[in-house]
Amino acid sequence: MIIALDVMGGDRVPRESVAGAVQAAKELGMQIALVGPRNLIEDELARHAPVPEGLHIVDAAQVIGMDEAPAQAVRQKRDAGINVAMRLLKDGGAAGIVSAGNTGAVVAAALLNLGRLPGIDRPAISAFFPSTEKGVLILDVGANANCKPSYLVQFAHMGATYVERIFGVQRPRVGLLNIGEEEMKGNDLAQDVFEKLQKSNLNFVGNVEAKDIAAGIVDVVVTDGFTGNVTVKVSEALLEFLFTRIKTAIMSKAHYRLAALVLRDAFRDVRRKLDYSESGGAPLLGVNGIVIVAHGRSDAYAFRNALRTARDAASSGLLSALTAVPKK
Amino acid sequence: MIIALDVMGGDRVPRESVAGAVQAAKELGMQIALVGPRNLIEDELARHAPVPEGLHIVDAAQVIGMDEAPAQAVRQKRDAGINVAMRLLKDGGAAGIVSAGNTGAVVAAALLNLGRLPGIDRPAISAFFPSTEKGVLILDVGANANCKPSYLVQFAHMGATYVERIFGVQRPRVGLLNIGEEEMKGNDLAQDVFEKLQKSNLNFVGNVEAKDIAAGIVDVVVTDGFTGNVTVKVSEALLEFLFTRIKTAIMSKAHYRLAALVLRDAFRDVRRKLDYSESGGAPLLGVNGIVIVAHGRSDAYAFRNALRTARDAASSGLLSALTAVPKK
Repeated sequence: MIIALDVMGGDRVPRESVAGAVQAAKELGMQIALVGPRNLIEDELARHAPVPEGLHIVDAAQVIGMDEAPAQAVRQKRDAGINVAMRLLKDGGAAGIVSAGNTGAVVAAALLNLGRLPGIDRPAISAFFPSTEKGVLILDVGANANCKPSYLVQFAHMGATYVERIFGVQRPRVGLLNIGEEEMKGNDLAQDVFEKLQKSNLNFVGNVEAKDIAAGIVDVVVTDGFTGNVTVKVSEALLEFLFTRIKTAIMSKAHYRLAALVLRDAFRDVRRKLDYSESGGAPLLGVNGIVIVAHGRSDAYAFRNALRTARDAASSGLLSALTAVPKK
Repeated sequence: MIIALDVMGGDRVPRESVAGAVQAAKELGMQIALVGPRNLIEDELARHAPVPEGLHIVDAAQVIGMDEAPAQAVRQKRDAGINVAMRLLKDGGAAGIVSAGNTGAVVAAALLNLGRLPGIDRPAISAFFPSTEKGVLILDVGANANCKPSYLVQFAHMGATYVERIFGVQRPRVGLLNIGEEEMKGNDLAQDVFEKLQKSNLNFVGNVEAKDIAAGIVDVVVTDGFTGNVTVKVSEALLEFLFTRIKTAIMSKAHYRLAALVLRDAFRDVRRKLDYSESGGAPLLGVNGIVIVAHGRSDAYAFRNALRTARDAASSGLLSALTAVPKK
């Protein structure tokens, strides 16, 4: 089984993407198609001599520049890496894709080359929200700013199927992200979705707030792409903000700095558990193929884990399970 | 000038609310009407002998129980503290109110007793979001799950007026909470509000994401009450989650615990700067009176600061400034 890697997608590429593929090949014995400009990939591979077996270069001459509108560029540059990788997937040359590129570009390329799963109205981008357990799958976090109730029901089915197949969770607990104020059980969309989810055959636990998610009372959280995107961005910004604040406070005095040296490993552990690189990316669900979206800032280790996630998803029969989910 | 305190509103009352009023009277020389059951207030005051000048008891016999639906209870129990305090405000017996009670109840009581400001369609609950500077006012965070574009424009005007009057910020920078994905500049609501804010006479800086708010590039952020509530809840849950994680990691080894002792003050500083108790509550804007909503978990110090905020707001001419803001 070959997993395609969009080598040029991400903030720290091709250095970290290629290094991640080398790790995945060496440590996990994976077969990986490195999709991107051949010369750049060869230069990077030269840094890892002897190059492990299992790495294949698939040339994609066009690169999407930082200054281009990503989704539009995807439609114009048919030989950009993300498009070449998607076509490889569609033609059976790869079983899954990993990209740390702009999510709008990944969604556009997936819709352009793979299309949607039968019966699914809209694909959804997912992410992992920190929780006491291994993290909660939340979707949609940005593919659909405006959602109809039926979209969220489909998201719920797809998210539950993913968690069941990939993590082996039986009857995953599904929650609807909502607000807790009395006499205002959410906006019109949430109220409508609530009723629909109650009638579904899902293990629907009802409305959840952020504290419920963090406490690990659900496995999957559904929301519209606007709220989901804000949720994910707030989480990221706040964690970054807090760690910066702690660092600044610690650096302000010599005896703080000494004490912090002792605690370095403890901090690293905490941070790692909250880190995107551990989760190894999250799926774009609802398109006709296994697409794992890794974080834009992914380092080699994060790419390695995302590649493993793609392999696990591809070998789990996820796609046929997703095809079988109820669409209403 | 007298500020009314809803003594029984909050999680740690009447102990902390009365203690906060005592602090405000003693340290800030404030005049405070303690509104609640007379006997309970007297018992608490006895703990602070000699009681400082400036504290007045206004008996409110009815108490809203933990098991009651707050907003409904407000309508049924006309002699609940929050209603008595609002009537005091309306009749000129107080210049402002502080409550740490359920926000749904506070909003209901304000609408019931004070009504809206002329031309304002909906009141908005505000909150402070952490930032590199002193915190950013975000509204609505829960009064209106469904919003029309015009509501958000009114929120923007009211928020800017508040920040200008209370913090002396000239031409406050206003941002619209939105998502950054390309080719999807937010949902329909955000797109519509964006255009309206551009045409306003506000200092509108455009769309902002959480990282922009944290970086302090705006003074006021507007959003609908659903998204705003999720944002605030996510922030709270995540900070709580992270501090718990750090604590657990530190307690796991003896030498970590020793090092953490040294860092205790540094941590306390970081936490305090993020703490609701420093901000001293946030205004309910759009009702015909100065209403400061304090955090449900407020301690004495938080109540003291909220009382000070109410006094500052009342003496700043905020209400007449709010009455003068454009409504479209």
